[in-house]
Amino acid sequence: MEFIGVLVFILFTTTLAGHFSKRIGIPVVIGQLLVGIIFGTGGLNLIHPDILIHEFSEIGVILLMFLAGIESDLGLLKKYLKPGILVAGLGILLPILASLGSGLALSLNSKEALFIGIILAATSVSISAEVLKELKLIDTKEGATILGAAVIDDILTVFLVSMSISFLSGESTTNQPMSLIILEQIAYFGLIFFLVKFIAPTLIRLSKRLYATSSIIITSLFIALSMAYLADFVGLSSVIGAFFAGVAIGQLKEHQEIFRNVEALGYSTFIPVFFVSIGLELEFSKVAEQWKFILIFSLVAIFSKLFGGYLGAKLDKFPSTSALMIGAAMISRGEMALIILQLGSQVGLIQTNYYSSMVIIVLITTFISPLLLKYFALRTSE
Amino acid sequence: MEFIGVLVFILFTTTLAGHFSKRIGIPVVIGQLLVGIIFGTGGLNLIHPDILIHEFSEIGVILLMFLAGIESDLGLLKKYLKPGILVAGLGILLPILASLGSGLALSLNSKEALFIGIILAATSVSISAEVLKELKLIDTKEGATILGAAVIDDILTVFLVSMSISFLSGESTTNQPMSLIILEQIAYFGLIFFLVKFIAPTLIRLSKRLYATSSIIITSLFIALSMAYLADFVGLSSVIGAFFAGVAIGQLKEHQEIFRNVEALGYSTFIPVFFVSIGLELEFSKVAEQWKFILIFSLVAIFSKLFGGYLGAKLDKFPSTSALMIGAAMISRGEMALIILQLGSQVGLIQTNYYSSMVIIVLITTFISPLLLKYFALRTSE
Repeated sequence: MEFIGVLVFILFTTTLAGHFSKRIGIPVVIGQLLVGIIFGTGGLNLIHPDILIHEFSEIGVILLMFLAGIESDLGLLKKYLKPGILVAGLGILLPILASLGSGLALSLNSKEALFIGIILAATSVSISAEVLKELKLIDTKEGATILGAAVIDDILTVFLVSMSISFLSGESTTNQPMSLIILEQIAYFGLIFFLVKFIAPTLIRLSKRLYATSSIIITSLFIALSMAYLADFVGLSSVIGAFFAGVAIGQLKEHQEIFRNVEALGYSTFIPVFFVSIGLELEFSKVAEQWKFILIFSLVAIFSKLFGGYLGAKLDKFPSTSALMIGAAMISRGEMALIILQLGSQVGLIQTNYYSSMVIIVLITTFISPLLLKYFALRTSE
Repeated sequence: MEFIGVLVFILFTTTLAGHFSKRIGIPVVIGQLLVGIIFGTGGLNLIHPDILIHEFSEIGVILLMFLAGIESDLGLLKKYLKPGILVAGLGILLPILASLGSGLALSLNSKEALFIGIILAATSVSISAEVLKELKLIDTKEGATILGAAVIDDILTVFLVSMSISFLSGESTTNQPMSLIILEQIAYFGLIFFLVKFIAPTLIRLSKRLYATSSIIITSLFIALSMAYLADFVGLSSVIGAFFAGVAIGQLKEHQEIFRNVEALGYSTFIPVFFVSIGLELEFSKVAEQWKFILIFSLVAIFSKLFGGYLGAKLDKFPSTSALMIGAAMISRGEMALIILQLGSQVGLIQTNYYSSMVIIVLITTFISPLLLKYFALRTSE
């Protein structure tokens, strides 16, 4: 029963933290991370990371990526494909190059500098989308470009993470020869194609004929968890499987019902545990020690994404203030970067030494993005 | 990721097992238990009971009891209070007395014989309710009496289990003096009263003002898990907390939305793990060895409940065939008895030696109840 107590405590504190974060106008994810930081080993030491926290958080990540996949609006993506690709592409390229350069200048090893770049290539526009809704700018060309670019950014970073976990990390989970692993991964991408085109629609259709309670939800979760598991099995990352399982479900007419149920399921059990688990192992001593690292990479994170987005938008002939607004909206790394950070630190792609500082950097980008977005949005509408 | 693989496997096999059970007309719970038996340590030894299985199954039990609580129709109960109390009361008293007698005759110790009686005092009318719906008898006086008696049976057995775990089990989880424990438990029952009357309605009302995704569902789960945790904390059983949390939610106008969501959440993750976990540790050698025990207690289980229900109904002036139909509907012990069995074996109230045989006895009652119910129902409507 001890874990049930911990779960109750996490549900209670994250819900309140999320609520008050929103009320005072800071992103919910920051409030929920603070719970982990306050009650974790670096703080009051009340919640200890154990196998149950770890497993719940792992399922939480799968559900977050699954939900992100379902939400990916491929229709919007097709309509704003050109600005989307430009904004996402440059918004990925610049952070990677800038991180690689800064990392080498700070004498990190090149693999680690590259992986920091991949963490900072991620974006999470959920907070930006809220700001845009609030300012009634979500249905503008800028709004659509931001959402479209976010989908492409998700897809590309999910690929980059999977590939880097497969090829950059020294740890090979299997003892298979490289050629076999590559064959398996190609087969896996083939499976994703068939999943989106045939398997998911067929399974969901069949599931309606099942004599079972909530059969559509069970089947969707089965698809998400099994694709995540298979991805991990062939040496890719579980997030790629969960994300494309979501994309497959997103194509179906049942996607809203499934989204609503998986959202309730995830946010009432597994997802809060993930957010808390991120903060649990934060070490303040490291943060104080590495203030230079944090300062430099925070600036890299903010400006590389801002200018990446800006340049992409300018190339598609957006006016300058619109382009800055688009860039500002992409700065927030939110849960996507935290997921990549956690995956990377598990396989040793980033030293646990830098873990705490990276969490702080992600928090800073998440905090600053809506402020800059509001600033440029107000200048755009003038 | 290993556990995710096990979870995927459990979801897949239990969903199919449940589906085909229904198609060939046997209760779903039997099909799902078979999965655990086939793949558990007594069978192919593919799924091993570990801490994750244990914790998921513990949450599964809490959700099952929470759902049972939400479903308790107190309105129906008030309307058919007299026959409900008579049927439930005698349907609890007879199995306990018969088990105690048979247990002592088989030279079990008296505590164990009593606890077997409490296991066999439980009932699960979900299968009977389906049969009655099929035969269009659910809205008859007999149908309402069965459902009302089931609610009373749930409430009484939940109390009996909590009390026996608190007083019969030698294991004291805390080192507090008995007087303090009793005070805490009285305070807990006071808390249940306030929960139903004030706390739950207030929390759910407040939760609507929360800035949070699925805030009503999170709040309901918070109530269920925290009441279960507190019950365990004061030395009662977690099921009593979860059940009355459900009763409290069942009074609110949001109860259908909450039920639907918790059902989807439970049946797509935690509840299948519970059903599988029951079968995992079944030992066939014990079953073969204890055929006499199984035979005697199966007969005790079937006839004590049948005559208990029959007598109760006769006392309220039901005709004989109606009374037999009511008794037959109550025979099925289903998940309620399995939950009590698992709780009891965890605290040593029943020897692990008898665990496998008790599972078989519960399966037999669950299998035979719908057959007898149909037989008497068809004679009633003649």
